[in-house]
Amino acid sequence: MKRTVARPENAHQAALLRLLRERARSRAELGDVTALSRSRLNLELDRLVELRLVEQAGLAASRGGRRSGLVRLSGDLRFAGIDIGATSIDVVVTDGELEILGHLSERCDVRDGPVVVLDQAMEMIAKLGEQGMFTQLYGAGIGIPGPVSFREGVPVAPPIMPGWDRYPVREAVGQALGCPAVVDNDVNIMALGELHSGLARQVDDFLLVKIGTGIGCGIVVDGKIYRGVSGSAGDIGHIRVDDQGPVCACGNIGCLEAYFGGTALAREATAIAGRSVHLGRRLDQTGTLTAEDVATAAEMGDAEAVRLIRDGGRRVGTVLAGLVSFFNPGLVIIAGGVAQLGHVLLAEIRSVVYRRSLPLATGNLPIVLSELGPDAGVVGAARLSSDHVFSAPR
Amino acid sequence: MKRTVARPENAHQAALLRLLRERARSRAELGDVTALSRSRLNLELDRLVELRLVEQAGLAASRGGRRSGLVRLSGDLRFAGIDIGATSIDVVVTDGELEILGHLSERCDVRDGPVVVLDQAMEMIAKLGEQGMFTQLYGAGIGIPGPVSFREGVPVAPPIMPGWDRYPVREAVGQALGCPAVVDNDVNIMALGELHSGLARQVDDFLLVKIGTGIGCGIVVDGKIYRGVSGSAGDIGHIRVDDQGPVCACGNIGCLEAYFGGTALAREATAIAGRSVHLGRRLDQTGTLTAEDVATAAEMGDAEAVRLIRDGGRRVGTVLAGLVSFFNPGLVIIAGGVAQLGHVLLAEIRSVVYRRSLPLATGNLPIVLSELGPDAGVVGAARLSSDHVFSAPR
Repeated sequence: MKRTVARPENAHQAALLRLLRERARSRAELGDVTALSRSRLNLELDRLVELRLVEQAGLAASRGGRRSGLVRLSGDLRFAGIDIGATSIDVVVTDGELEILGHLSERCDVRDGPVVVLDQAMEMIAKLGEQGMFTQLYGAGIGIPGPVSFREGVPVAPPIMPGWDRYPVREAVGQALGCPAVVDNDVNIMALGELHSGLARQVDDFLLVKIGTGIGCGIVVDGKIYRGVSGSAGDIGHIRVDDQGPVCACGNIGCLEAYFGGTALAREATAIAGRSVHLGRRLDQTGTLTAEDVATAAEMGDAEAVRLIRDGGRRVGTVLAGLVSFFNPGLVIIAGGVAQLGHVLLAEIRSVVYRRSLPLATGNLPIVLSELGPDAGVVGAARLSSDHVFSAPR
Repeated sequence: MKRTVARPENAHQAALLRLLRERARSRAELGDVTALSRSRLNLELDRLVELRLVEQAGLAASRGGRRSGLVRLSGDLRFAGIDIGATSIDVVVTDGELEILGHLSERCDVRDGPVVVLDQAMEMIAKLGEQGMFTQLYGAGIGIPGPVSFREGVPVAPPIMPGWDRYPVREAVGQALGCPAVVDNDVNIMALGELHSGLARQVDDFLLVKIGTGIGCGIVVDGKIYRGVSGSAGDIGHIRVDDQGPVCACGNIGCLEAYFGGTALAREATAIAGRSVHLGRRLDQTGTLTAEDVATAAEMGDAEAVRLIRDGGRRVGTVLAGLVSFFNPGLVIIAGGVAQLGHVLLAEIRSVVYRRSLPLATGNLPIVLSELGPDAGVVGAARLSSDHVFSAPR
């Protein structure tokens, strides 16, 4: 039997919940940080305890005077993070502090459409429930590999997701799980994951560049995802690299994605397989080549594979150099399947950005590979949900 | 005799001053908008009246019950806006609502260095004082044509401003005028001017592209200037347009500024003067050509001049197309001296951006010429100052 889950009733309660998400705190400390009067603070905290969002946790260490009561998020709070990829689903259940309690990963084909794929995701979450990880979820965040109208909670003409266009993902998941749901694209949830527990924890303004089948960018301004006016901010895969380049799937010429990313890399590897022992042998064995095959060949020292990665890195670097001059971020994180091409790719991207961007913009700019790996998306999806639930009612 | 000017003492007072900057309001309306309790609101307003930042203005029209007291910004409030260009200084004095009370414009040469140029600006402001426009300024905003460390209030290695590097502009102006001062680059203050009284009044996220001697971009996110981590955000003049292009003053190859902007346009016009009747005649008369000569020739139908402008517009458009895909703004404003090349330039920029950016990003994207003209910078400088003064103490 699903019950309606409690939500904060005002901005003060929302701010307190976000502070407690970081760690348990004493009432005295919360008073200092929020600048609420003691009576107002206690009123709001007592109400949060009533709502079962917060619980007492004994007394804090003395700061000299009377010991202050310690409070923390309720141990019953649970959030779900769902990361739907082109060929995989990852789900996690977390506690209120967004610590992962359980993580499942399964193969899927996003082209099977929203009903099949979301059913599978719901079953995976149900499994975590059967393992005792939750009785009631307080919120769920979902990331999908395509453009999303964040406001409406639906995919918008996603190129690699036939059948998903404007499907009510947010509503469907929210109803299935009996809790508020939020939907965003895969790149934004990865950026939130890095902000929450990755390399970007101390950085207000940064970029996460995901190089997977396609190429996209998550933009964080002042610790929040920047989505742009129609929600398409960060869609950098179709920025022009060359006027004389190949025709892209979008119809334009010389787009970044027409040169690099999983799809382009597989195509180019097939074209040059005759010149590479490793790629040629692999193509004979399997009849098809993937970005992973290029990575393997490069690791084995295959010169043609290394050249493909270098060429791609140079083009990503060229686009990124312009964005770094424009945006002056504090950090650039490279992530996604093709990012596992690793340090050859990173070295080439760095070389171009450090040479082509303004010195003032690159003086203190780290460009790094993500360290979170497959956790970035699911943790970010849970964080997205927590940000949503721990916000003031409108 | 200078006195220390009053400032808001807390965040509530700062918020009230910003609301009153828009227009006079009744106490009842301020209570609704700020959600402050009636007693707290009256306490803060009474304090602002004591500080002479706010004054009573009679009774508001009845909303049914007792008529509520009307309050407005004090009629004594005055702000200065100073816009220093490569060859001109503009100054304004405004009231608290940032209405311009007086505007002076004089020629100068920024290469004469900070002492000479700032002295001239201070004399211009003194003239407005002698005309009775103020007895005491509450704040001053200064825009300069080069990179600024906003935090420190100093120019940082500005290419066209010899002698200005790290000169304490903020401190010097603040001391001379006896009020808090703030310094930013020319592009950011123009963007603030557009936000305050130009085409961007209703737009939260927009770009202002200034095409003058060089090319720069003001970025507004959520109604605030986005400056990036080291303050260089928007520095788009050195984004790569072409690998085979001319060498830029910065040492790289194929930068946008190496192709377009006042300097590049003058150089190219001189190079092709032999093929153009208008440009050739002008060169014979004056021995040198400027961007203005190209504009005049284009207006007279000179095909070579029109071609120069089209080529430039195409390159600006190419860079802008990438930034529009990345940033998904709600509006792009083209401003600056070369923007006066007008509709030929605008048509070319639009054509490239609408063709090359993602449809989702350009669906509702107006690309327009600034309508504020030379007022944008000074109004923005005054607004910068007002934002600073009407903010909570740290």
